[in-house]
Amino acid sequence: MNALANEKTVYNFCSGPAMLPAPVMAKAQTEFLDYQASGISVMEMSHRSSTIVEMFASAAQGLRDLLSISDDYEVLFLQGGASLQFSMIPMNLMRADGQADFLLTGAWSEKAYKEAALYGEARVIASDADNGYRSVPPVSQWQLNPKADYVHLTPNETIHGVEFTDWPDTGAVPVVADLSSSILSYPLDVSQYGLIYAGAQKNIGPAGLTIVIIRKDLIKVPERTVPKLLRYDLQAAQASMINTPSTFSVYLAGLVFDWLKGEGGVQVMAERNACKAQLLYDFLDASDFYDNPVAVENRSRMNVPFTMKDASLEQTFLREAKAQGLLNLEGHRSVGGMRASIYNAMPEAGVIALRDFMNAFAKRYG
Amino acid sequence: MNALANEKTVYNFCSGPAMLPAPVMAKAQTEFLDYQASGISVMEMSHRSSTIVEMFASAAQGLRDLLSISDDYEVLFLQGGASLQFSMIPMNLMRADGQADFLLTGAWSEKAYKEAALYGEARVIASDADNGYRSVPPVSQWQLNPKADYVHLTPNETIHGVEFTDWPDTGAVPVVADLSSSILSYPLDVSQYGLIYAGAQKNIGPAGLTIVIIRKDLIKVPERTVPKLLRYDLQAAQASMINTPSTFSVYLAGLVFDWLKGEGGVQVMAERNACKAQLLYDFLDASDFYDNPVAVENRSRMNVPFTMKDASLEQTFLREAKAQGLLNLEGHRSVGGMRASIYNAMPEAGVIALRDFMNAFAKRYG
Repeated sequence: MNALANEKTVYNFCSGPAMLPAPVMAKAQTEFLDYQASGISVMEMSHRSSTIVEMFASAAQGLRDLLSISDDYEVLFLQGGASLQFSMIPMNLMRADGQADFLLTGAWSEKAYKEAALYGEARVIASDADNGYRSVPPVSQWQLNPKADYVHLTPNETIHGVEFTDWPDTGAVPVVADLSSSILSYPLDVSQYGLIYAGAQKNIGPAGLTIVIIRKDLIKVPERTVPKLLRYDLQAAQASMINTPSTFSVYLAGLVFDWLKGEGGVQVMAERNACKAQLLYDFLDASDFYDNPVAVENRSRMNVPFTMKDASLEQTFLREAKAQGLLNLEGHRSVGGMRASIYNAMPEAGVIALRDFMNAFAKRYG
Repeated sequence: MNALANEKTVYNFCSGPAMLPAPVMAKAQTEFLDYQASGISVMEMSHRSSTIVEMFASAAQGLRDLLSISDDYEVLFLQGGASLQFSMIPMNLMRADGQADFLLTGAWSEKAYKEAALYGEARVIASDADNGYRSVPPVSQWQLNPKADYVHLTPNETIHGVEFTDWPDTGAVPVVADLSSSILSYPLDVSQYGLIYAGAQKNIGPAGLTIVIIRKDLIKVPERTVPKLLRYDLQAAQASMINTPSTFSVYLAGLVFDWLKGEGGVQVMAERNACKAQLLYDFLDASDFYDNPVAVENRSRMNVPFTMKDASLEQTFLREAKAQGLLNLEGHRSVGGMRASIYNAMPEAGVIALRDFMNAFAKRYG
């Protein structure tokens, strides 16, 4: 939320790279040229310097505090986005003749599944593809394989706006979850996961940073040839510094973690996010001008896709919204329509401004 | 070069992440919260937005202009540093039963060689390892393999301070070169290379961005299983945007390219860099207090390692230098001693300040 030259407030609903908390951006700007009287930028510091090494440790501790991550887990700061994890996970966790289970709930779980199939037997345990990814297949339909090396879930699908938070006990099979668009938006029981991964550019920081939280017993020498930088065992042994990491991104992530703590942590975020989402969904449900395609019980609190009964009005909607300072409301190019991404950094005032604009637009064109 | 609160000028000799041009940093700070009256930061913009897509195209064009890169080459903006290229290059360029040649001139070419050996027959064509990497093996000793898929060179070794710019015609075997620490510091004849790669954090921008310049005929479907994000063919087909790239880093790289153009381009840089390096080497050669271990004809213009006859003075040297605003002069932890990295962004005044300090220090302790 920044003020334009003409003082108009701007709200950025981009799905990612997304808006960052205004106080974080202000602090980063202030110390951009001179970090803590060092005379140089964070960006210009050796990753081997005590300042940066401590910054990484402090950011990892910040994440541990926020999510109550136990010492049974490593926190890694990597590059390549969630998409590189689609490869790293099977390369590291699948045995040479391994198997892995995938629940297909949207475009992102589909991508994770396809990439894993390059390395072993990737099985679909259930899929909502035929339904256009508008709901989560009921647990009774999941065909879990007790011999799988892991089961992969995407608890929040950024493109389709589908979310789920509960699943059956998978026994000895570790749960691997892509939380790119929902990490830190509500309290997690990390002990329910073998591995959590997230691209930073939604709820954590700038693009170019990926967070991996991995249970230590899953960290081992892979059973296939894996590039050095893509091995969890080597990254963990070297505290994410096999080579030069994306230092400025970790710095910003640390500032976001500090901000989250100051706001009261993930429980407070969960309450705010529930309110923000409810505000939009209530409006959509009461409207006969707009639609949300997702099953009520699977609606995402982070990504709210919507359509208009008259799709020919979409460009007008986007243009007028932009003129009002409501930015980046277009849906993903693969599905069309509109989408409001309302991560932690989006204040309730932004959601109210969007709802009021949508209401006025509907009255004008409905 | 920034001014501290007490107005003392600071010069940062870090080998990377290195100092960035002061005007680039100032511009980035000014528009950090609000890029071109958009109301949001570059960091908060969708990579699919026209602003970012055009920014990538413009940065690529800037690099093309500076190095006269022809249309026979693709320019890619990737992640993972030069070290991930150590893997990507053999994964993509080596045939299934392939061979590649490596000239060992320091720690970085050694790493590239070891990683490539995971994917095929990596051969050492010549090595200066037994000499402690203080010179480049004479061309008469190079045992080039005409059947190699490529020959790998590291024309500037950042740690050992060894540089070379000429090599024999390799015929049909493409030259693959790690130019992380020397790209854009002098004019290149790109047509002499099959592939050039460079981590950005020395002469281009912040850590977390890697530049690849690859001849188009070398871009093909790899003969082994390669993660989607590590395939040159797919990255080229999607203009480095298979997934969310490191947008803010490319923005900064673009600003650096603009700055370089404004300064007169790489020819001007080459002249300045030659002067800066000469200034230091002349001083070292005239001194019996300091030493430079590298053969005169192979001295790097970018990284100047040096030692003191009395190594017990090193910590005192580093502490006093820091107190004078001369930062990050410690040598790489693998070789010790000192090192001054004097990339494009380092003004001659910084090199003079370093020389004057070294001179005074020698008088005080010699």
